[in-house]
Amino acid sequence: MRFYSDNTATIAPEILSAIAEANRGVAIAYGDDPWTQRLDPLFGELFGTAVRAFAVLTGTAANSLILAALSPPYGAIFVHEEGHIAVDECGAPSFFTGGAQLMLLPGEHGKVTPAILRAALDAHPPSVHSVQPAVLSLTQASELGTVYRPEEVAALCELAHARGLTVHMDGARFANAVAFLGCAPADITWRAGVDALSFGATKNGALAAEAAIFFNPQLVRDFELRRKRAGHLLSKSRFIAAQLLSYVESGLWLRNARRANSMAQRIGTAAGAALLHPVEANEVFLNLGDARKAALRAQGFEFYDWGAADSGHARVVAAWDHQEADVTALCKALGAAC
Amino acid sequence: MRFYSDNTATIAPEILSAIAEANRGVAIAYGDDPWTQRLDPLFGELFGTAVRAFAVLTGTAANSLILAALSPPYGAIFVHEEGHIAVDECGAPSFFTGGAQLMLLPGEHGKVTPAILRAALDAHPPSVHSVQPAVLSLTQASELGTVYRPEEVAALCELAHARGLTVHMDGARFANAVAFLGCAPADITWRAGVDALSFGATKNGALAAEAAIFFNPQLVRDFELRRKRAGHLLSKSRFIAAQLLSYVESGLWLRNARRANSMAQRIGTAAGAALLHPVEANEVFLNLGDARKAALRAQGFEFYDWGAADSGHARVVAAWDHQEADVTALCKALGAAC
Amino acid sequence: MRFYSDNTATIAPEILSAIAEANRGVAIAYGDDPWTQRLDPLFGELFGTAVRAFAVLTGTAANSLILAALSPPYGAIFVHEEGHIAVDECGAPSFFTGGAQLMLLPGEHGKVTPAILRAALDAHPPSVHSVQPAVLSLTQASELGTVYRPEEVAALCELAHARGLTVHMDGARFANAVAFLGCAPADITWRAGVDALSFGATKNGALAAEAAIFFNPQLVRDFELRRKRAGHLLSKSRFIAAQLLSYVESGLWLRNARRANSMAQRIGTAAGAALLHPVEANEVFLNLGDARKAALRAQGFEFYDWGAADSGHARVVAAWDHQEADVTALCKALGAAC
Amino acid sequence: MRFYSDNTATIAPEILSAIAEANRGVAIAYGDDPWTQRLDPLFGELFGTAVRAFAVLTGTAANSLILAALSPPYGAIFVHEEGHIAVDECGAPSFFTGGAQLMLLPGEHGKVTPAILRAALDAHPPSVHSVQPAVLSLTQASELGTVYRPEEVAALCELAHARGLTVHMDGARFANAVAFLGCAPADITWRAGVDALSFGATKNGALAAEAAIFFNPQLVRDFELRRKRAGHLLSKSRFIAAQLLSYVESGLWLRNARRANSMAQRIGTAAGAALLHPVEANEVFLNLGDARKAALRAQGFEFYDWGAADSGHARVVAAWDHQEADVTALCKALGAAC
Repeated sequence: MRFYSDNTATIAPEILSAIAEANRGVAIAYGDDPWTQRLDPLFGELFGTAVRAFAVLTGTAANSLILAALSPPYGAIFVHEEGHIAVDECGAPSFFTGGAQLMLLPGEHGKVTPAILRAALDAHPPSVHSVQPAVLSLTQASELGTVYRPEEVAALCELAHARGLTVHMDGARFANAVAFLGCAPADITWRAGVDALSFGATKNGALAAEAAIFFNPQLVRDFELRRKRAGHLLSKSRFIAAQLLSYVESGLWLRNARRANSMAQRIGTAAGAALLHPVEANEVFLNLGDARKAALRAQGFEFYDWGAADSGHARVVAAWDHQEADVTALCKALGAAC
Repeated sequence: MRFYSDNTATIAPEILSAIAEANRGVAIAYGDDPWTQRLDPLFGELFGTAVRAFAVLTGTAANSLILAALSPPYGAIFVHEEGHIAVDECGAPSFFTGGAQLMLLPGEHGKVTPAILRAALDAHPPSVHSVQPAVLSLTQASELGTVYRPEEVAALCELAHARGLTVHMDGARFANAVAFLGCAPADITWRAGVDALSFGATKNGALAAEAAIFFNPQLVRDFELRRKRAGHLLSKSRFIAAQLLSYVESGLWLRNARRANSMAQRIGTAAGAALLHPVEANEVFLNLGDARKAALRAQGFEFYDWGAADSGHARVVAAWDHQEADVTALCKALGAAC
Repeated sequence: MRFYSDNTATIAPEILSAIAEANRGVAIAYGDDPWTQRLDPLFGELFGTAVRAFAVLTGTAANSLILAALSPPYGAIFVHEEGHIAVDECGAPSFFTGGAQLMLLPGEHGKVTPAILRAALDAHPPSVHSVQPAVLSLTQASELGTVYRPEEVAALCELAHARGLTVHMDGARFANAVAFLGCAPADITWRAGVDALSFGATKNGALAAEAAIFFNPQLVRDFELRRKRAGHLLSKSRFIAAQLLSYVESGLWLRNARRANSMAQRIGTAAGAALLHPVEANEVFLNLGDARKAALRAQGFEFYDWGAADSGHARVVAAWDHQEADVTALCKALGAAC
Repeated sequence: MRFYSDNTATIAPEILSAIAEANRGVAIAYGDDPWTQRLDPLFGELFGTAVRAFAVLTGTAANSLILAALSPPYGAIFVHEEGHIAVDECGAPSFFTGGAQLMLLPGEHGKVTPAILRAALDAHPPSVHSVQPAVLSLTQASELGTVYRPEEVAALCELAHARGLTVHMDGARFANAVAFLGCAPADITWRAGVDALSFGATKNGALAAEAAIFFNPQLVRDFELRRKRAGHLLSKSRFIAAQLLSYVESGLWLRNARRANSMAQRIGTAAGAALLHPVEANEVFLNLGDARKAALRAQGFEFYDWGAADSGHARVVAAWDHQEADVTALCKALGAAC
């Protein structure tokens, strides 16, 4: 019973069908096909505003290509110290931007606050000697399974814009955040001030498909050239576009996220006092200690250790395709142990 | 009737089935799955020697990640002036290597010769003031549809190695080259001295799958870290690996290439004196002039102009899934026009 | 009376004479001259061990070129959050290394401790997803005017080496540190485990001259090529080398540092309770508040604000060429105000 | 008798005096000093138009920092295949721009023509797949000692601008070109369409001083930040500025260039049929063959071989401080040999 990650999940049947259906006849390569051409209107409708949307294959590519459009090589990108771009992308933001410096921010439960951001901005007023504050990057849902409320996003964006920064949202689990909040996608993005979004689908049912979405068309700049020279312009682009079209149009994105979130809620409740952070998406962080971790593993539950080697922490992730029975078994075991 | 490119083709049914078959149950992400783990032995058997093989999604990624393993940031990469890495990848080699300089070489019919390479190496003996000769990159089949013979590859590799360069082969159409030569894959790669190969599958039937293959394990170096930070490590890696496994194991790679080559041969023969380069793979380059191009297009044949705007040249590509009838129609039209 | 920085000082007469003396006859360019050739033995003797020493023109160049020799593009460089490379070099380390990520460490009075470094290393065990711990960069004297003791350097180097990191020392004010400690230069460098040192001379009497010194010749790697392509190989190299030769051989380096340190000591003592950090080199950090800062400025004392805009902090720097009378006046004014 | 390069020359007495005169009292660092502040008006007057001028220490830095202001990372920089930026700067343009690709152009006697540039631009019309034509970089005087006439520069700039490129001029030997043409500095720069100039002083009498001059202020962009993060913002900036001020105001720049040119003329005339290129600046290229080279060296004349190892070519450079007697001796020896 593997609770390692939502990356270990399968492709949703709807997505696989969409790929098969797109597999008819010749289509112009590199995005000049009807599927890819529909991405702008698709996401425009989803977000209720005109957008530019670009298909890429990994979340790291979506994040870093957006950051390269938003930050100069001597830019500073402010991000929570647990952010995926800070911890899990092997320096991709610096590679794609040509050198931008990550400014790591603390913050409870994986979330940044305006006070924290303000302090970081104030600490070193920019001059010719310093990297230039360029981007605030928020993760929604956060890396610790929590979710920014619309007004939290808005307050952060307001401060960022006032200081001349643009705002990127890493939405690898964007669907989980929307499912939790029950809000419109616009409420936590452009309406709150977000300039560009990495809209994830891979963790939530796709084979490999993410969209880089710009709410401000002026910020797109040379995105397409940067995507090309990073090897992320797919020749048979229709097959990523078809995944995204199906994912959104079929309602799969919210359906899968709701299911995963609800399983995570059950696991979090079962964990009781062992819970480290509120469960607001599909990830559960637990302070189990080594003995309880070993006991759970002996019962066949697989999950990752988390944080420092001696912390005793663990991460359990509920994916859209987990079996109810497995989740029930895990809840039972956790209930007994905690 | 579209003869634009082999990139406009569909996914071969065998490949789509392989993806569907891999879509069962949870699999560890990022390449620690059974499909990805089989790539080394798969290609080891195909090439008759131990190799390291890494799955990526685009040819540009395969080429540039290999070049980044082979060249320092101040390296010089020697390549034919029509090479895909020189002309069609928006500067990716320089981006991935951190600045390596492409040294463009002339050469008839898209192929470099030892004499041409030697002259380029001799022109500016390396010193602390110059970029350091690092890599020779050969395209097989070449960008002009021709194929290096095993002894031609061997002579170029011998010279390159003698001067301290490693050799990369861009094999976006490697299957077409092998199909034309009727040789063993080893004959035009490691046995002839090639150090690393971009083994393409996308143009020849895959959804999106290429393998970066190292014949010399010492040159792999930090390939995996570079792939990760370029956003090219797929979380659901099994679905690229499954494409490559099916492509090779089913014999699809050679079957499709033979079919495409044979259609190109027919087109080339029909073109007669309009032919610009020998047809040895699945591309046909024609000196048609503007009037004949317009006439063909009026008959429903679609293809790209080639070269300088006023050259009157055109490129016709035969893909594995072209209809025989379309090819026959094109041959007839060409025969009448040329 | 300007106490802005030691960068505002003049060229020491000894250094200017050395430049004039080197200005005789033709000398081979780019470092193949007798002056530059003497740098290795000069610093070898100063440090009591064989070294490789390279002349560059700015401290930023020395730091970043060394870091580029020590860290891969996907490396992590651990440094105090007030470090010059983190705050005052506009992202140079990332530019020169091709993307290395700075990991900012806290630490009282500008100094890192082993416990702090260990916690940072433990927080995210390296994997293919993360930047790879590569370098610990220490600033000696620190950016807050304090000095690492030999045993402190040794403990940090021991931990760093045990975790596979190399150690760089930013010695823009190295002479001030040695003058304070009264130790041998070796005691706080190679004997304590430091792998490479930026040895500054500009702030302490040179026109523009710094040395990048490697105690471990294997780490030099491609330093010379990287220096060249960064535009830091001077054609008339003899004129930087002559500065460094004079600076060290004449004893100027220690003489000037002692004088500057002693003036800073007097200022620090006069400041009394306003002092923020121990005065161990030539910089004095003061918590004056806006009113006292204004009063001092009204009396003709010029200095920089420090830290966040509303902190009320100030930095006063004593340079080797400050007038005794000016320092006395400042002490008197501070004594009256504090 | 060393005729290696003008880089082997001494510092002109006027320049050394200017440094000594600037060495009085405290001056704000990093360019906010009265000397540096005078560079804009100084060069504005020299060129008869408003300019922005930035002091740097090496020609490689001036060239590459300008190119980084003019070209995006995916830009193409067109330059003669013998250009210093192509051959002698170890890939600096690619490093500073973040990856721009050099497009090497042929051309007799080291000079590009509009026809050659047009052919290169036409060969591969830009698309998302290609590097984007960004800059034409001309070397004046050229690397083969020839000089573009004002109308030649104008024709090239007109074509470049029509195609959306900006124009950089590498003027490491700009003074020699002006001295040869007897024109106003404006005639071969902004009046002919040049957008930015590397104005060299080091080879012609300075210690180390070059100016990056922008005739179009909009192209300056983030030059200062890029200079800083490349380690090329000198703290004691007054001492480079003082060199440039003295170099231009004293008339030294033209005086020295005229003297060097005239010595080169004598050498070229003496060489007779061995001359490879017209002598229009201070460099002389000779087809001597190995025997004659050996004979000259045996008589005490030192110079570099040039080009491919077996070419028998040599380069002789006349510097502003060469002794008349040495030149006379060389002319005599050449006359006897050729």
